Amino acid sequence: MKMNKIEHIGIAVKDLELSCNLYEKLLGVTPYKREQVFSEGVYTAFFRTGESKIELLQATTNESAIAGFIAKKGEGIHHIAFQVDDILAEMVRLKNEGFTLLNEEPKMGADNKLVCFVHPKGTGGVLVEICQELNIE
Amino acid sequence: MKMNKIEHIGIAVKDLELSCNLYEKLLGVTPYKREQVFSEGVYTAFFRTGESKIELLQATTNESAIAGFIAKKGEGIHHIAFQVDDILAEMVRLKNEGFTLLNEEPKMGADNKLVCFVHPKGTGGVLVEICQELNIE
Repeated sequence: MKMNKIEHIGIAVKDLELSCNLYEKLLGVTPYKREQVFSEGVYTAFFRTGESKIELLQATTNESAIAGFIAKKGEGIHHIAFQVDDILAEMVRLKNEGFTLLNEEPKMGADNKLVCFVHPKGTGGVLVEICQELNIE
Repeated sequence: MKMNKIEHIGIAVKDLELSCNLYEKLLGVTPYKREQVFSEGVYTAFFRTGESKIELLQATTNESAIAGFIAKKGEGIHHIAFQVDDILAEMVRLKNEGFTLLNEEPKMGADNKLVCFVHPKGTGGVLVEICQELNIE
């Protein structure tokens, strides 16, 4: 059991439209999807690059984790998400390995996924997400 | 012309051995390669995850960019590298799109690659590397 691939890299931005223009130029592709995630207080836009995605995140509320991140560190890479086949099993595995999970149960994230975050204190300062794709439309 | 895939994510660490143990547990795989890059003043270790890699970087000199990054920001994600087919053509394309390159000519990076860095001021705080694999042993 392991991480299958980098599902996406999450980048905290101040202005989604401005950053979308920038990443269109950088990556040479247009976003394939935009989505508002009310539970996380974010607008998102997704770009494909190989088997992975770049997710741009703009806060829609001051309580959003993205707003807090930008206030503290400025714009930049917020998290790495790894795709797993069985998020519940992987959560147990990571806990047994000594990692601290930020949510004890999987929660609904953007792009039709169940997600769980691993505390960056245990991963050398990197906020790691694991995610499992849901097979529902 | 565009970025083919995320080639790797570079993570700045203080202690390569300690972080290797951590990422072995996190990713469920062992590093496939360790390499010292004298020109950059770093020890590196690489883990595969899908078509991408996680590169851990520890500074070997105080002048290393990794030492400066850790002094300023602590451990964490240092850069994203995208694979390109033709680094010279991509460097021209990015300059024409208004990005600032940190090296005007490709330089030799870790893992048998020609690399060029894009200034994070123009990419919303993200240090972006583009890299082309060299077909030499």
